[in-house]
Amino acid sequence: MCELLGMDCNTPTDITFSFAGFSRRGGATGPHQDGWGLAFFEGRAARTFLDPTPCAKSPLATFLHSHPIKTLQAVAHIRRKTRGVTRLANTHPFQRELWGRSLVFAHNGTLARARELPLGGRYTPIGTTDSERAFCHLLERMLAKFPRPPREPRALWSFLAQVAGEVAQRGTFNFLLADGDTLYARCDTRLWHLVRKAPFGRATLKDDDVSVDFSTVTTPRDRVAVVSTTPLTVDEPWIRGEPATLWVFRKGALLATLPSGKPSRKALRIHAEDLSSL
Amino acid sequence: MCELLGMDCNTPTDITFSFAGFSRRGGATGPHQDGWGLAFFEGRAARTFLDPTPCAKSPLATFLHSHPIKTLQAVAHIRRKTRGVTRLANTHPFQRELWGRSLVFAHNGTLARARELPLGGRYTPIGTTDSERAFCHLLERMLAKFPRPPREPRALWSFLAQVAGEVAQRGTFNFLLADGDTLYARCDTRLWHLVRKAPFGRATLKDDDVSVDFSTVTTPRDRVAVVSTTPLTVDEPWIRGEPATLWVFRKGALLATLPSGKPSRKALRIHAEDLSSL
Repeated sequence: MCELLGMDCNTPTDITFSFAGFSRRGGATGPHQDGWGLAFFEGRAARTFLDPTPCAKSPLATFLHSHPIKTLQAVAHIRRKTRGVTRLANTHPFQRELWGRSLVFAHNGTLARARELPLGGRYTPIGTTDSERAFCHLLERMLAKFPRPPREPRALWSFLAQVAGEVAQRGTFNFLLADGDTLYARCDTRLWHLVRKAPFGRATLKDDDVSVDFSTVTTPRDRVAVVSTTPLTVDEPWIRGEPATLWVFRKGALLATLPSGKPSRKALRIHAEDLSSL
Repeated sequence: MCELLGMDCNTPTDITFSFAGFSRRGGATGPHQDGWGLAFFEGRAARTFLDPTPCAKSPLATFLHSHPIKTLQAVAHIRRKTRGVTRLANTHPFQRELWGRSLVFAHNGTLARARELPLGGRYTPIGTTDSERAFCHLLERMLAKFPRPPREPRALWSFLAQVAGEVAQRGTFNFLLADGDTLYARCDTRLWHLVRKAPFGRATLKDDDVSVDFSTVTTPRDRVAVVSTTPLTVDEPWIRGEPATLWVFRKGALLATLPSGKPSRKALRIHAEDLSSL
């Protein structure tokens, strides 16, 4: 399994604080040693830093900590492989272009017989993961349904929730999908989010001995949504996702929570276990 | 105008030495201050480091110098904008997927009315450059002609040379196109290459006070082709490209030099000037 981290903001924000705790899980406090990636959006374009080595020991991750990049949207992933060998082509987040935008995708979970997910010749996996295959399938379906970006964004949200629910029947399908404008986050078994907004306070990382007082680095109108496989901080009001739902974020706000297929027994079990341990 | 740097090898090689001299031109010894990018292949996948700030002052470029990545193929670009503003979406090299491979493209020159280059709905520019439009056009043409990778690679080489010659009628079209297996380099006005192989000797950078003795860091079977807008070293036998030709490199060797359209008057004039100054 892997860990996901997403950020969606209404003002350019650096992801350093969240990424610091998150990246410790890549080989230091967690077992996710099979590479990591971090994508930043600037408008419709994204740049993705990929490293098929453990995040906690990665010089590139250290560089990104010490040279923070401000962005409105970011997606990060730490991999513990379940399918496909450790190599660049199998390192999340994956990136493709659709409708003249970069789309960035990261997945947590495992899908059975992902090779059976049909493609249409428009997107072909480069690596061998179930995750990239599922991403290509989502893109093919989106393009077939909407040859151009739909005027009514909600039509796309619903369609994406529906298709993701279909794919999820093959296993576990927690994912983040970002296009520089909207961040989609599907909870299957485990996904949490938090919206930081005024009044800002102090937050302390769970995985590292670091805390920050956001009131000193923000303005009252700032709003930052953070999505993560598990809460990154110990003293903020993280919200747990319901199994088989899709969150839609834009400009740091949660715009919608849509049903996305049927929750699996596994998802309901994990959900219940997590809630009872709170 | 911009500068191009490509490398194609038969053994994993770091591009640090060539990139050192090249990156000095991005704001230090040259005027190319509008961003830079460097793509490395690992198999069929590429990771691209993009930075819309001057290369000579870029912390990310410094990081890549001090943490060299070994690769069989790399493409770098330093930009001095002629079309499109300075931003991430306009920063070369551009990257797209075709036939389950990353394709990486960097362009030197300016094309008139590039927006008239037809597209087919498969590839859409994210930014506003003539270069990305031309890249998308090349990809659309390649996919339309070869829905699957051709069994006979030479059919693709010839087709690419022909299409590039057509695009070049709009202006100046020096480019590098890499797919992790083959490196294509089209000379319009100015492009040089060099194949480093045994017996290896010493090379001294033109733009920096650095020299290296390759015999100490190579084995006799190593072979590295380097392509650059202008020679990077002062003491190696660089070969100047003929206007309107396409070089095809694989595993560090020049496999073919194909005609690619008709040379423009401008190209012939620059070629003659360069030769007379040698």
